[in-house]
Formats: sequence, C-alpha cells, structure tokens
Amino acid sequence: MHAIIDAAWICHVAFRDERGVHCIPTACWRIGAHLYIHGSNGSRMVRRLMEDECCVTITHVDGLVLARSAFNHSMNYRSAVIYGRFEPVEEAAAGTGKRQAMEAFMEHLVPGRQGEIRPGNDKEYAATTVLRIALAEAACKVRSGPPEDDEEDMGVRAWAGVLPLREARGAVVPDPACAMAAPDYVRRWAD
Amino acid sequence: MHAIIDAAWICHVAFRDERGVHCIPTACWRIGAHLYIHGSNGSRMVRRLMEDECCVTITHVDGLVLARSAFNHSMNYRSAVIYGRFEPVEEAAAGTGKRQAMEAFMEHLVPGRQGEIRPGNDKEYAATTVLRIALAEAACKVRSGPPEDDEEDMGVRAWAGVLPLREARGAVVPDPACAMAAPDYVRRWAD
Repeated sequence: MHAIIDAAWICHVAFRDERGVHCIPTACWRIGAHLYIHGSNGSRMVRRLMEDECCVTITHVDGLVLARSAFNHSMNYRSAVIYGRFEPVEEAAAGTGKRQAMEAFMEHLVPGRQGEIRPGNDKEYAATTVLRIALAEAACKVRSGPPEDDEEDMGVRAWAGVLPLREARGAVVPDPACAMAAPDYVRRWAD
Repeated sequence: MHAIIDAAWICHVAFRDERGVHCIPTACWRIGAHLYIHGSNGSRMVRRLMEDECCVTITHVDGLVLARSAFNHSMNYRSAVIYGRFEPVEEAAAGTGKRQAMEAFMEHLVPGRQGEIRPGNDKEYAATTVLRIALAEAACKVRSGPPEDDEEDMGVRAWAGVLPLREARGAVVPDPACAMAAPDYVRRWAD
C-alpha cells in the first residue's frame, strides 16, 4: 500500500454533505502510517472531512490487457482504497506538526527543493488546514500479467497480450521570468 | 469535457450505501452526451448506482508547478466532475443498446480490434450490466501554464517553472501463448 500511495500525486476523496456525494481530486502524500492532504480553511471539503467518515482512493493504470475474447479483456492496475475520518494536523502536534507535514509534501513533490524556496509564513499557514487519515482500514487491489482466456477461446485468431501504460516526465518548461539555471533536481526530471 | 473524458481509461465513482461512502475506480467510455461504465450484475456498486445519485470524477495530472514560494506551488491538471444517477442500458435500447455500447468500449480501448476477437455471447451479456450517466450536471476544471508568484516573491533565488507529466505507452508484451504477428494497432502502440 505504501508503494501505491508514494507513486501518486493525487487521490480522489469521496465524502457526503447535505447536497449528496462528492468525489474530489486533491494532492496527497504519506508520512508513516497516515495519508495527508491540505486545503484552505474555508473549503467545503476540508470542513466536511473533519465531521464524517470518507473514502480515499488512489489508482494507477498500468496497461490494457488484450484477451482473445471480448469479455476477458481487462486492465492492469494498482489501487488503494482507504476508509476512515480525517483529523486536523495541528501546528504543535507531537511528532509531525503542520509545518513538518507541509515540508514533507514539498519533499515528496520535488526532493531537495525545500531549502531554496520562500517557506510558508504565519499567515499562509494560518489559512491552510492540513488533514491526515490513518492507513488502518484500507484495501489494495493489483492486477498484473498477461490475459487469462478460457480454454475454448485459445484458438481464436486474435493477438493477445498487454499494452503497457505508465507515467512519463516531459521536458521542463522554465517560467519566462526565471533567469536561473536549472538545479540538479530539475535537470534530472525528464525521462 | 468530452476531451477530458475521452483521454481517460478510468473514472472514480463515489456513492453511498448503508455502510458509508465509497470511491471506486472503474473503466469508462463516452458515447455522445453520456458516460458509460459496466460491471457484473451482482456487484454492490452496480446495484447501488441504479438506486441513488452519485458523483463520477476523471482527473489527469499534467505537471508539477514550481513557484518561488512554497504556498504558490500547484499542479497542472484537467478534471471533470459529473453528478447524477446512472441508468441501465438495455439490450433493446433505442439508439445505443447494450451490445453497441460494449463494442464502443472496445473501440475506445483499442480501435480496430473488435472484428478479431471472439465477441460476447448471450450468457456473458446476460451477466453484465452496462450503465450510463448523462453529462448534464458536470464541472470541468483546468489549470495550465507557469507558476503565479506574488510580486514580492519574484526576487527569491529559486528555479520556477513546470515539470510536465503525461501518460506514456510502453513496449507491448505479447502473451506467451500468442504466436500471431502483432497487428497494426499493436505495432503502433508504443511511443
């Protein structure tokens, strides 16, 4: 489960309010046995998540699985579905506080960058809620490998195998107003 | 919205049952102004989706946006959030029936393959539910382009720009039991 979460930039959070059910994508990261997200204090989602149970899902699609029969087609994927309730991460929390959590987020996004940027100030932190949910009640599902056709379909004259999919990193795009040479972690970005 | 949906292999479906809220990834495709999914008749999700409103979300992450200040970091992305209720697609539905819908799914996954494979039989279709939801109540959100720093942060000595992400296609993996030459649509797969 940790590997599935650590490979993700975002999760989808399902929660309900008086208007119904919502499914909202948001950035996420992991510290130990918790998944973290953040948002502005005023956000509907942030407020609701502290009041009720929710479900958080991360999915990676790894390939299309081409079988000899239509109904045996499938996808290779890895998913983690987490149930529970988010709790706010306080400024002075024992262990990982709000600032440490946000710095871990930056380290997850771009390792090595934290020391260069202008860090969050008191006003920015005060306007931001950091939430975490325990990875206690969770289920991972993984499908990998070749198609599985029924014996009676093995003679069908159709190509069978996997068409792999993966995340790729493109050539970096410097901000037009940025005159700095790219640091190591930027030069190493593209595949 | 159509472009965001058509670029997706899967969506995340949020729904509730007596145990709470769920967020489940599932394959999806579009025909006209509806999003389609399918599942086995016995699936909890399939049964619940016909009884209640839900929320379906598709998200593509296009890049990490590196700003000069920590709190102006962002992601480039495209998302579509759809609200409504799924309806079953019947065998004899006017316009797009169940079989046409499943053939459109195959054409979405692997254009040109439908004619080679062993098509679904009556038993397979009878065990499968195809559902569709209107793209009527939906919201798209898109972020693209460079970081947006505050004026007072423009002097910070940190590289700024975008680290792009995209989906890539890997080298195909033939099934060990497949002796056929790869057809055009397989040879063209990899980037």
